[in-house]
Amino acid sequence: MQKGAILVLSGPSGAGKSTIINAASDEIGEYYFSISTTTREPREGEQDGVDYFFVTKGAFSKDVLQGNFLEYAEVHGNYYGTSLKPIYDALDQGKLVIFDIDVQGHRLVRKKMNDITTSAFITPPSLQALEERLRARCTDDESVIVQRIENAKSEIKAVGEYDFTIINDTVEKAAKEFVIVAKAARLKQSREDEKKFIVEWLG
Amino acid sequence: MQKGAILVLSGPSGAGKSTIINAASDEIGEYYFSISTTTREPREGEQDGVDYFFVTKGAFSKDVLQGNFLEYAEVHGNYYGTSLKPIYDALDQGKLVIFDIDVQGHRLVRKKMNDITTSAFITPPSLQALEERLRARCTDDESVIVQRIENAKSEIKAVGEYDFTIINDTVEKAAKEFVIVAKAARLKQSREDEKKFIVEWLG
Repeated sequence: MQKGAILVLSGPSGAGKSTIINAASDEIGEYYFSISTTTREPREGEQDGVDYFFVTKGAFSKDVLQGNFLEYAEVHGNYYGTSLKPIYDALDQGKLVIFDIDVQGHRLVRKKMNDITTSAFITPPSLQALEERLRARCTDDESVIVQRIENAKSEIKAVGEYDFTIINDTVEKAAKEFVIVAKAARLKQSREDEKKFIVEWLG
Repeated sequence: MQKGAILVLSGPSGAGKSTIINAASDEIGEYYFSISTTTREPREGEQDGVDYFFVTKGAFSKDVLQGNFLEYAEVHGNYYGTSLKPIYDALDQGKLVIFDIDVQGHRLVRKKMNDITTSAFITPPSLQALEERLRARCTDDESVIVQRIENAKSEIKAVGEYDFTIINDTVEKAAKEFVIVAKAARLKQSREDEKKFIVEWLG
């Protein structure tokens, strides 16, 4: 039924995912970047409905109970979730839906929509580079930075579960690789047509 | 250890695999097209060491016993195999190795070299188109054509095991999709580097 395709991106906070997507956006065609719902406080400059949908823990729980999330997870004491409705709408319109979710979220998407899903793990070239980027951002407390680094060490063990790994040493190279990954993801758009095709073949 | 990557192509004889590769060859960079070893008789115009390595059943059996094949299979009463040595040589040189093998062969490559393997199933747009192409080729007896069509019906059931499906309705479109698939396959070249990278991260 769905005519679009899904591209899951994971990787540590500070890996440069947004920068890479922006650098590649002219070449990857129309896409819908899935906006997560979160219970965490907005950082300076973050806008509701642009960076995240910011909600209370109560509202989040209600959505969980009503089955409105494709996936949700707790990270550093806050909840993050992906609402199903905008995803289905974008897929129906034949768009490429890009997710920025964690390792657990990726596993869930694989379970539910494996046929039309492609995934890439995006990572800084080293732990040191990650630390520098997190500090340069100046948005996190020291304890949050330490937690993010520990989390990154744990997440990178799951890199083998992803179709592709993009090591972000230079934005140019990473964006070029990302364009290939996005185009490859789009090739899965026709999976429903393929099923019809096979039925026709087998008569 | 291997620095290259593998691209497996499967699909019915007559799907247009060679035509697509030729149409795309300027854009996919340097590659090694794996030449199969076979016990079948050469067709008119086929050259030993170019289209196939043509060998006797005795020589083929000897290679099987010595473990010299990555995979081998019996198709329509003839044997086809893929020798390991030229593959390893090409991978060591960092090349993309392209295989034209059947569904069974793909399963074996997946088992042995999954990390660096990408796969695509290439198929004509319909059973009728396949039949027309096989007849236009004028190289097969009627009984072989009938067998090839039955074989195609059986192989297409495995289409879901492949990373990509390319429906060859026009050579231009199929070649364009093939370029994306080949570029995606090349992104797996760095898997060994990635492993080193993860070890370094986890210190």
